[in-house]
Amino acid sequence: MRITLINPNTSVAMTRKVEAAAREVAGPGVEIVALCPPPGDGPEAVESHFDEVRAASVVVDLIERDLEAGGSDGYVIACFGDPGLDAARELVDVPVIGIAEAAMHVAALTGRTFGIVTTLSRTLGRADDLVLRYGFERACVAAYGTGIPVLALEETGSAAFEDIAAWCERVVREDGADAVVLGCAGMADLCARLSARVGVPVVDGVAASVGLVAAMSRMGVGTSKRDEYARPSRARARAAAIA
Amino acid sequence: MRITLINPNTSVAMTRKVEAAAREVAGPGVEIVALCPPPGDGPEAVESHFDEVRAASVVVDLIERDLEAGGSDGYVIACFGDPGLDAARELVDVPVIGIAEAAMHVAALTGRTFGIVTTLSRTLGRADDLVLRYGFERACVAAYGTGIPVLALEETGSAAFEDIAAWCERVVREDGADAVVLGCAGMADLCARLSARVGVPVVDGVAASVGLVAAMSRMGVGTSKRDEYARPSRARARAAAIA
Amino acid sequence: MRITLINPNTSVAMTRKVEAAAREVAGPGVEIVALCPPPGDGPEAVESHFDEVRAASVVVDLIERDLEAGGSDGYVIACFGDPGLDAARELVDVPVIGIAEAAMHVAALTGRTFGIVTTLSRTLGRADDLVLRYGFERACVAAYGTGIPVLALEETGSAAFEDIAAWCERVVREDGADAVVLGCAGMADLCARLSARVGVPVVDGVAASVGLVAAMSRMGVGTSKRDEYARPSRARARAAAIA
Amino acid sequence: MRITLINPNTSVAMTRKVEAAAREVAGPGVEIVALCPPPGDGPEAVESHFDEVRAASVVVDLIERDLEAGGSDGYVIACFGDPGLDAARELVDVPVIGIAEAAMHVAALTGRTFGIVTTLSRTLGRADDLVLRYGFERACVAAYGTGIPVLALEETGSAAFEDIAAWCERVVREDGADAVVLGCAGMADLCARLSARVGVPVVDGVAASVGLVAAMSRMGVGTSKRDEYARPSRARARAAAIA
Amino acid sequence: MRITLINPNTSVAMTRKVEAAAREVAGPGVEIVALCPPPGDGPEAVESHFDEVRAASVVVDLIERDLEAGGSDGYVIACFGDPGLDAARELVDVPVIGIAEAAMHVAALTGRTFGIVTTLSRTLGRADDLVLRYGFERACVAAYGTGIPVLALEETGSAAFEDIAAWCERVVREDGADAVVLGCAGMADLCARLSARVGVPVVDGVAASVGLVAAMSRMGVGTSKRDEYARPSRARARAAAIA
Amino acid sequence: MRITLINPNTSVAMTRKVEAAAREVAGPGVEIVALCPPPGDGPEAVESHFDEVRAASVVVDLIERDLEAGGSDGYVIACFGDPGLDAARELVDVPVIGIAEAAMHVAALTGRTFGIVTTLSRTLGRADDLVLRYGFERACVAAYGTGIPVLALEETGSAAFEDIAAWCERVVREDGADAVVLGCAGMADLCARLSARVGVPVVDGVAASVGLVAAMSRMGVGTSKRDEYARPSRARARAAAIA
Repeated sequence: MRITLINPNTSVAMTRKVEAAAREVAGPGVEIVALCPPPGDGPEAVESHFDEVRAASVVVDLIERDLEAGGSDGYVIACFGDPGLDAARELVDVPVIGIAEAAMHVAALTGRTFGIVTTLSRTLGRADDLVLRYGFERACVAAYGTGIPVLALEETGSAAFEDIAAWCERVVREDGADAVVLGCAGMADLCARLSARVGVPVVDGVAASVGLVAAMSRMGVGTSKRDEYARPSRARARAAAIA
Repeated sequence: MRITLINPNTSVAMTRKVEAAAREVAGPGVEIVALCPPPGDGPEAVESHFDEVRAASVVVDLIERDLEAGGSDGYVIACFGDPGLDAARELVDVPVIGIAEAAMHVAALTGRTFGIVTTLSRTLGRADDLVLRYGFERACVAAYGTGIPVLALEETGSAAFEDIAAWCERVVREDGADAVVLGCAGMADLCARLSARVGVPVVDGVAASVGLVAAMSRMGVGTSKRDEYARPSRARARAAAIA
Repeated sequence: MRITLINPNTSVAMTRKVEAAAREVAGPGVEIVALCPPPGDGPEAVESHFDEVRAASVVVDLIERDLEAGGSDGYVIACFGDPGLDAARELVDVPVIGIAEAAMHVAALTGRTFGIVTTLSRTLGRADDLVLRYGFERACVAAYGTGIPVLALEETGSAAFEDIAAWCERVVREDGADAVVLGCAGMADLCARLSARVGVPVVDGVAASVGLVAAMSRMGVGTSKRDEYARPSRARARAAAIA
Repeated sequence: MRITLINPNTSVAMTRKVEAAAREVAGPGVEIVALCPPPGDGPEAVESHFDEVRAASVVVDLIERDLEAGGSDGYVIACFGDPGLDAARELVDVPVIGIAEAAMHVAALTGRTFGIVTTLSRTLGRADDLVLRYGFERACVAAYGTGIPVLALEETGSAAFEDIAAWCERVVREDGADAVVLGCAGMADLCARLSARVGVPVVDGVAASVGLVAAMSRMGVGTSKRDEYARPSRARARAAAIA
Repeated sequence: MRITLINPNTSVAMTRKVEAAAREVAGPGVEIVALCPPPGDGPEAVESHFDEVRAASVVVDLIERDLEAGGSDGYVIACFGDPGLDAARELVDVPVIGIAEAAMHVAALTGRTFGIVTTLSRTLGRADDLVLRYGFERACVAAYGTGIPVLALEETGSAAFEDIAAWCERVVREDGADAVVLGCAGMADLCARLSARVGVPVVDGVAASVGLVAAMSRMGVGTSKRDEYARPSRARARAAAIA
Repeated sequence: MRITLINPNTSVAMTRKVEAAAREVAGPGVEIVALCPPPGDGPEAVESHFDEVRAASVVVDLIERDLEAGGSDGYVIACFGDPGLDAARELVDVPVIGIAEAAMHVAALTGRTFGIVTTLSRTLGRADDLVLRYGFERACVAAYGTGIPVLALEETGSAAFEDIAAWCERVVREDGADAVVLGCAGMADLCARLSARVGVPVVDGVAASVGLVAAMSRMGVGTSKRDEYARPSRARARAAAIA
């Protein structure tokens, strides 16, 4: 089974980190590939709706290219806004999962409630949209921005870790969250330490989405191709033109 | 006052139709400009999430260019999925309104309930998302796809009109809608005849959005620049690079 | 185009203020008329459900009288509880909008969220009912009473302004509102100064409703006369008896 | 214990019917008084928002008069739109219950779901508002208007009964309601026969509200006088002026 | 009329307290019986989902036994988690009400909002489930655990009373509750004193449920036996086997 | 990794079927154990709330016994009502998932909407409760009972398959479901054939829950032990007494 992860920003370091996090939970027989756009062909980080628009284009393009190269058994959109998720579902019949979606589903299975700790507060509106879209408006008791930019996570010294840990503790102690969802693919490597610190499950969407895609693949369950998610004719035409 | 409408598909005919519909309701002192991407630089029509991703890119690009050319007093996204709306709001401090958003707000002011009649049924999922995002999940009593593709509306003979009218009547008689929202910018010219036929207000989002943008502009109310909708730094950087 | 505003309380000073606020945004070709009941024929202010019952009667009576005198192209109920709105919609086929309704719709178009700053806290229950009725329960992040009675706004010295501004700042800074809705027709003249102070759009319902009524009128969209909002037979009979 | 029922329409026949229905369930030690406005001082029936505005005035006035005459241990608003309920709660510290409210609460205790069968379909919007206000939007699976006007119920021959029974059966068999709420005080005498016919509990709001008021009174639980429902100063002043 | 209350824990002292609270509000002609399981046959207190599972078994068993002994005119589940309520409704055709359900319904009739003050915070999840199940998610503004275990209420010295009173005051003053619901059958005797202290209605579910069952019984309204709540065949078979 | 499935009914045949379905998707390194109560110690099938109460007791008891015997890396409650799920979560710190919960989460990942096809219509109320509890009230577009009792599935001839297939087709064609959730552990073996027939993903909760438990286990994410789901003291005491 091959699972392809799409990091829609241009950071190679973050793509490697995502890949490593995915491999750690993949289990035997699951091959992991992580892609990102070349410099200049995508946003350096996804921290606004403006970036999100560009990220969605990247996701669609990289999946189309992967399909031309033979395709995978499942796709993960490794960016917490789940950019291009609906479009990606149109393109394939295997599972496609966004890391925000995956993290929220898994967090919901650990208890009753969860909280989200993410990067910049300006992305919280997008997180709210996703919470509502996926049906977790009662499960999600709070969402906070730490103020740490995505790329600053790459140089995660102890200060960033301490900041993130403090927000995790707040969401657990004050908002009563049973679990914490980390709101950025770039936080994938902090999961275990944070969980040990705050004493509740801390869920990274990269790991969660790999687990969910693998489970669906083993069940023979992919993306529904009924109406809304059928492959659009223009996508077909374009793929033909590119090929 | 200048209002710029962005039609994110490449149909010049539809762009002219949108412009005409906007001018009809603009009132004295309101200049209307309607833009669309050159052929090949955007989707021919927006009928899938795949198209929506490309449309959002077009919206962002055309607004950025309009800003470089001096900008307008308000923007309308003339495509029923409201592609790129949140990103557009980040870019400007004047009002930006999508035509789905505008049509739903105006329809809600005509009574208690409304229904949506749109093009292909596969776009109803996106319409549902917008209904929920804007808070009209109780007001919107039904949404139907007519099965008429966007571009077929350009050659609207009587058959298409009759089909659309039949769906409008259904949403009023069987679903109890007080008003009908037309789910495509390409239906802008059918509004008055449909309203006469079904006996309730039939709302076109192009006209609705022009009215709302003009009203907000006269009130001195634009887009909030607080946090989520503040202009993103990467947009600033990119604009500088382009300039 | 003639728009009639109904202030259901007996304060002539507030009625003049409402009229002025309406004229300021009316634009060319829009005539503004503002009515209020004579002393003793309506509540001095609307600050309770008890007052609201009387205000609703006033609204219905003044609209019936205006209709007998030839009618207008649209009506505004210039009281934040939107008293009598559904009944008013039954009486006419032109647009009728309440100022709470108008302010919330416009505020929702400026971003994602808004807060309400009103007079007495005892009126917040009614505001909640309207937020839910209009579908803004997710958009409206907070509502506060300042404790300033309606009529005290007429003598708005700097103390009242400072109080209101402080609540506006709270709703923006602490509750994360993208915009502020002013919850009383008597605050119509404070809008621009408050907006300058708090740095986000501050929306007055009087101005908002004039803009929305004018927009709907230009679109040829009025009140749906289907079933619920058809003119009731008893209203017809009574009008005949009065005439 | 004395319970006063307010029928806000001018039909003496319906008032007697309401009184009889109340007495039947009152139990020992509960005195029932039923009031209505004199002809010309209220609507003949309540079948529109226009009527509702007048009915609310009647409710407030009759409660104020009853208070001046010594008051009661609880009040029932015997009109399915619950007109003036919030204002009535401001005026007293004993329980006040509307018959729509009471019927929905009792119906919810008989199982999981209920349906509403009422008079004219144009009143269904008001019923929807109340369903939402009281929190029964998931419990209420359907609401239908029979098309029978309120006053026609007074001459309930077998045809009207059969019509109403047919709608009750529909709401049970097709919509899966566990119970039926009758949407008019004038249907109070049909309850037992309808229940025998359709085989599920059929709930009349008059009986339900008397039971709830009596229960609250025995518990020593009345209307909360905190903030929103505190007696308004203008009501005090007006009562003093009248006295 | 005979009403049977089931206390599913093994505390005889709490059962006597529940019985006394029920008798106080029962009114003439209502006989009260309170049952509990013998020591070892049920949980000592219900303070977790684990206890809840055992409590539900007790409720089902004690109702079955009461039915074999002739049955009652109505049943009350005297435990705030309403354990076994749906199963109990399947077994009988008379009214069955849980004390959480009853308290919330009555509290909702005293104004707009209520808060819950209960024993251990770990039971708040169950309270949330019930609030949602009964439709009070907008009415219930807050729920707090005092940290006082159920059985410690039996030795209610002034310290426990003061603690509970402090939480009641918080829910009224800070969360704006119009009424307070006490979240444990063991608090039944504190109601009047707490109400006097905080100045709003304080509702005990034992008294509330007795009033509601009596009201329904006088109306001839019981549990709907349609589909979901029809007596299950296995219950029939088992009862036959036991008999 | 060892995953223990609890079938709370006494059917050994169904337990073997559940075990087989689980093994088929378990993947390398995952040991599957399926338990059920001995005849007479649990319900023969779970088709009512009455059965559900007994099933919850079985779940709690079998998990306690498995823990005494060394415990597993995760638990699945293999009964569509998810009986005892919250109590089970209190008892362990590894993942515990109900098959209704698992099936709904996976179905939600295949598109936008799903429908449920289950056994008796009387169990739909419980399904509704779970849909709401897990946040899928917008995703779940319809739920139907086939009228086929649980144990009749064991003798699934072609008639039962055709019936179930017809309901699956209805939920896809008429209600617009993107996927179908099978509402009984006894349908686990029909999944692939049904999916081939209706052309959309058909999700069996047994397979789904095994995949989710395995994914969570590999991530090191278990059940949150914060407050509500901490192991209750009475469970500890009882386990000690038994041991």
